[in-house]
Amino acid sequence: MSELKGAAIFAQSGGPTSVINASAAGVITEALKADAITHVYGSAHGIRGMLDDVIYDMSKEDGRELELLLTTPSSALGSARYKLKHYDEDDRDYKKILDLFRKYDIRYFFFNGGNDSMDTCSKIGRYLQKVGYECRVFGVPKTIDNDLWGTDHCPGFGSAAKYIVTSFMEVALDAKVYDTGMVIIIEVMGRNAGWLTAASSLASQKGLGPDLIYLPELPFEADRFLGDVESVFSANGNAIIAISEGLHDADGVYVPEMNYQNLAVDSFGHTQLGGAASILGKLVKDHLNVKVRSIELSLLQRCAAHCASRVDVDESFLAGKMAVQHALEGKSGYMVGFERGPGPVYVCNTKLVDVNEVANKEKLIPREWVNEAGNGLKQEFCDYALPLIQGESRIAVEDGLPRFARLRKVRAS
Amino acid sequence: MSELKGAAIFAQSGGPTSVINASAAGVITEALKADAITHVYGSAHGIRGMLDDVIYDMSKEDGRELELLLTTPSSALGSARYKLKHYDEDDRDYKKILDLFRKYDIRYFFFNGGNDSMDTCSKIGRYLQKVGYECRVFGVPKTIDNDLWGTDHCPGFGSAAKYIVTSFMEVALDAKVYDTGMVIIIEVMGRNAGWLTAASSLASQKGLGPDLIYLPELPFEADRFLGDVESVFSANGNAIIAISEGLHDADGVYVPEMNYQNLAVDSFGHTQLGGAASILGKLVKDHLNVKVRSIELSLLQRCAAHCASRVDVDESFLAGKMAVQHALEGKSGYMVGFERGPGPVYVCNTKLVDVNEVANKEKLIPREWVNEAGNGLKQEFCDYALPLIQGESRIAVEDGLPRFARLRKVRAS
Repeated sequence: MSELKGAAIFAQSGGPTSVINASAAGVITEALKADAITHVYGSAHGIRGMLDDVIYDMSKEDGRELELLLTTPSSALGSARYKLKHYDEDDRDYKKILDLFRKYDIRYFFFNGGNDSMDTCSKIGRYLQKVGYECRVFGVPKTIDNDLWGTDHCPGFGSAAKYIVTSFMEVALDAKVYDTGMVIIIEVMGRNAGWLTAASSLASQKGLGPDLIYLPELPFEADRFLGDVESVFSANGNAIIAISEGLHDADGVYVPEMNYQNLAVDSFGHTQLGGAASILGKLVKDHLNVKVRSIELSLLQRCAAHCASRVDVDESFLAGKMAVQHALEGKSGYMVGFERGPGPVYVCNTKLVDVNEVANKEKLIPREWVNEAGNGLKQEFCDYALPLIQGESRIAVEDGLPRFARLRKVRAS
Repeated sequence: MSELKGAAIFAQSGGPTSVINASAAGVITEALKADAITHVYGSAHGIRGMLDDVIYDMSKEDGRELELLLTTPSSALGSARYKLKHYDEDDRDYKKILDLFRKYDIRYFFFNGGNDSMDTCSKIGRYLQKVGYECRVFGVPKTIDNDLWGTDHCPGFGSAAKYIVTSFMEVALDAKVYDTGMVIIIEVMGRNAGWLTAASSLASQKGLGPDLIYLPELPFEADRFLGDVESVFSANGNAIIAISEGLHDADGVYVPEMNYQNLAVDSFGHTQLGGAASILGKLVKDHLNVKVRSIELSLLQRCAAHCASRVDVDESFLAGKMAVQHALEGKSGYMVGFERGPGPVYVCNTKLVDVNEVANKEKLIPREWVNEAGNGLKQEFCDYALPLIQGESRIAVEDGLPRFARLRKVRAS
């Protein structure tokens, strides 16, 4: 172990999840305990706080509130989607960060995010090395999309998946209540990776899930889709369909951008991604002349801490804690990843993944986990996903309402 | 007590809720215990099962599954939206029902539903009386909309409200995470009554709810709405808005049917109610030039048993149980209603409400509970609603997924 004395800074980036704050709790509580770490800072809005010198002193937070972070969704310190240029191209941002690190004597940098964030983490680490500033840089993974390379799964996925599966089961019960049939299309997040959409298949295993599942990994064909829906509806008198927001045809045209001639769909409201369910709902209604309801899970699915997976919460905390422990041991330039132990009982171990390797890669669902028709998942996927949604994370309750963490956010000086 | 020996039948009607099955459990378990009740039947799909002789023998159900009904959303026996004509106009349906009641010697009829269902209940009760068939008829209230006349509140409301409040709080945390502002518009169920939309104000009290709330009880004015949103966004840098699906202008034109000239909104996809959020989202985007996200809670809000209110579950069970007890005592032609005890501590007592009085009436939010500007709720509303969302209903879990009741549905013969 090589001792490096100095302050630590933690930042959250990318889209919020139900458990990104659990990783924050892991990093912060572990860093506050470490002798080598002189101060623990939090950066406001990801990298932005480091550029603008908006830095919080985490030692000023109440211990009870830090504990509540475990069950508080979204990014307590704020997030950002700020893309750093390469320092060879433009090093102004890097110089600002270096100045800030020098000002606060920051020697430990923990960055919690997804693909883009690991890219940022990698660039900052290499820049600091290049200019000879000693700092241990660590990535902490986070993304509901589960598309990070080099790890068995990602913190955030299990909780979003648990909410999605639960919601599908509840809606399935609702959908089958009338003696008149209906088609329900539910749109799930995931632009390129279909992990969350696929998670709905866990509900199907209980007889309360989608009959058909369409992932962005496979090219979307409207005719086949309509044929599938018609078959299911004819057989069952109703149909529940899970679709990814990122469905696109072989040419990469997303569903909301498609202009089905026979639909006279104009461009109203379809400038943003999202809306695939309503377009496909219209398509089904026009072609099959059945009652259709389109549901978009939208932001609800990524912040539903009240329905988080206990396994996910615990692992997210662990990822943050292990990042600090490894950094204290002298490691740098890694992301904490997960690997599954062998054997039938689920065991999750952490490992170190070179953060440069993770950056800008994407892990998609293997084709062999999808059925031949491309409209459902095989048992392999369920075996993979089921352990990740185990256990209930009980949120703290006050007056019958969630009691989420309230950080004081005292500015460091 | 006047003893009447015979069978009992129970039916569920109208839109599903998270707790309609809790009332089913109350009726069924209490009826199964009663000496005077010879058989306990369930009707498939509300009144339809009584017309088509699709009747289940509830004594054939497993006790554990009946218990699971307490935490199983939607209508386990199926529902229907079948409107009976008045028997003076057309008595064919009534004769079928009478034949069925004679066939199974049904002397107790329990009907679980909302406004329309109480109307059905009232008509059947009066018809049976007219033809001299002795049968005790009872309404068991149910509606997430909370618009039933004659009762302090309705089973189903508290659970939907709890889900809505929780979701608003989670989305509010998500919405405020970026340093760039956004307007979020969340559409809540309730065509004529704004109780569920108003419930979001409980989240506002915690600082994590909507900044603006628009109810269907007040005429919607687009210009005032835009002015309100602009003010809030200017002051806060973001805005969260709760709207009812039933918003309409002073002429009764619903938002999805409005054709804002300056929007060039066509009629695509707006033929059904629902979609108000996306229309208003477009309106805000075009006028204020800000990022907008529209979310429709859709079916999720009425079947989210995983986030049900314990108070609501218990009271729903109680309503079913008391209906049976009162019927056994000789009462008939009533709906079980709730009344709140006096004093600061919430106490809910049951009472009997003449079912003929309930039918086809609607209870709306009193104007004096809404602020002067018509875009928020006053403390009176919160005091009313908060006790109804207390306590967590823990759903049974199996493999990390909800374990909902699976009834055998054995046909009676």
